[in-house]
Parts: sequence; C-alpha cells; structure tokens
Amino acid sequence: MRARDLLAVSPVVGLDSPVIDAARLLAEQDLPGLIVVAADGAPVAILPGTQVLRLAVPGYCQDDPALARVVDEAHADTLFDDLHGRTVREALPRQGRELPVTDPDATALELAALMARTRSPLVAIVEHGRLVGAVTLQALLDRMLGS
Amino acid sequence: MRARDLLAVSPVVGLDSPVIDAARLLAEQDLPGLIVVAADGAPVAILPGTQVLRLAVPGYCQDDPALARVVDEAHADTLFDDLHGRTVREALPRQGRELPVTDPDATALELAALMARTRSPLVAIVEHGRLVGAVTLQALLDRMLGS
Repeated sequence: MRARDLLAVSPVVGLDSPVIDAARLLAEQDLPGLIVVAADGAPVAILPGTQVLRLAVPGYCQDDPALARVVDEAHADTLFDDLHGRTVREALPRQGRELPVTDPDATALELAALMARTRSPLVAIVEHGRLVGAVTLQALLDRMLGS
Repeated sequence: MRARDLLAVSPVVGLDSPVIDAARLLAEQDLPGLIVVAADGAPVAILPGTQVLRLAVPGYCQDDPALARVVDEAHADTLFDDLHGRTVREALPRQGRELPVTDPDATALELAALMARTRSPLVAIVEHGRLVGAVTLQALLDRMLGS
C-alpha cells in the first residue's frame, strides 16, 4: 500500500486567505487541518483547526483559560467576529514547524512515521513539485485496521 | 451557548487498555482523539491519534522518516502488528501535558481558549468529578459558524 492508494483531494488555503474561510472549510469538510500553499501552489504549512482558534481567543484567555469565564456568555458567543480581516498567515505558528510532506510512493510506514514525528493528522502529497492531495490519519487507520 | 449544549458521548479507554482497541475506536468513530480514564473513571489524558502511531513506528523511523523507505512495502503494511500487547499507557507522551478539561457551564470562549492553549481538538467535560462527555473542535466550529 502506498500513499497514492489513500490520496484524497484536499482543499487548500493561501497564506493571505481570510482565516474565517479556513474555519468554514474545516467545519464543513470535517478536516483535521488544512494545507496552506504559497503563491506558486507549493505547500508551505499545515494549519491545524486549534490554531484558527488561537486568533479568535484574546491573549489573556490563552494564558489562563479560567479568565475566559469572566467574559459574559453573549460576548463569548461572538468570538469569531474577531477573525474577520485576519489572514491564514497570522494563524500559523510563529516558529515554522516541519512540514509533513511526502510523495505518492510513500509506504504506510513512512506516512505513519511522518504523522507521529510531526504530530500532524494530515500529510501533504507532492509529485513533481505539485500538490496532488493529502492522506489523513483517518484514512491510514482505516486501511491498516481493515475497517 | 455552553459546553452542555455541544456535549457528545465520548468513548473512553483505560490506561491499561490495549492500544490496538484505541486505534480501532479512533478509526471507527472518526474521532480526533480519545479520553483516557483512570481506574476511578476520572479523565487523566487525551490520546491523540498521532500518538498511537508512535508506538507502531520503530524509533529509527521516527527520528528520520526517510529511513522508513528502506523497509519493504510488505513489512511496512504490517506495522500495526507491533501494537499488539501494548497499552494506552505506553502510547501517552512521557511528559504529562495539561489536560483539556472543564465543566458543562464553560462558554464558547472558554472551550476555544482551552483547545487553543492545549492544541487539543477534544475537551473532556467533567461534572461533580464524573466524566459526562466531550466537546470536539468540530462541534464548536459548527456552532460558532452557524453551519
């Protein structure tokens, strides 16, 4: 079994895409993360869903989630309003992380090693410098467990 | 909106449960992680799917996923055989991490702050010392985006 056998079409977002669009894609397509591409279409990062939240949450609540309780419920419900006008670039971790990327010939073991090492449930698959899709942890588990 | 409105029943695994059972639960129920409970039923950790893979991947491949390519495809496909006899306890990160846990009264902002801070797409919800379910990033995004 090779990565090409588990390949799924993956929606991508650009570095300057609105982060609210990324949040919608994550929600609608039930994805563990999104592949972020540069202007030339090459993948540059994986945006995990939890990172989108970081932009929506005021800094003082991130340091101490208990402080979030003092914000009343009505305002707590509008936290996504703060995402408008923000870009995917702003949602990415400051420190660049290893990009989980491989080619369509990668074996199950290579995919598992990449996911384990980068703690990413999504691996970008690139062929001849072009993004051809993604393999998810879900797809890998399904195949390996024969379910 | 409060955590109780987004609560979903969450399957749990024990510290001494076979890790292969955890992998099956993750695959079958399409979950981003599992809540790990102690003997008294109290949540002690979240097991992300990528951590299950860590047990299945030989150490030399984790340090350098490119080395995984030298393992032939037939053997690469049987990597999950190595999970048999291993426990959830062994799959958990050595260094204990902050457990994303709150109560049913937590607001959307509190849930988002917890997920952002712990980078966990799953928050355990505890009431009167008892686990009552979980809130997923997916459920939170769906509600906040009105999709």
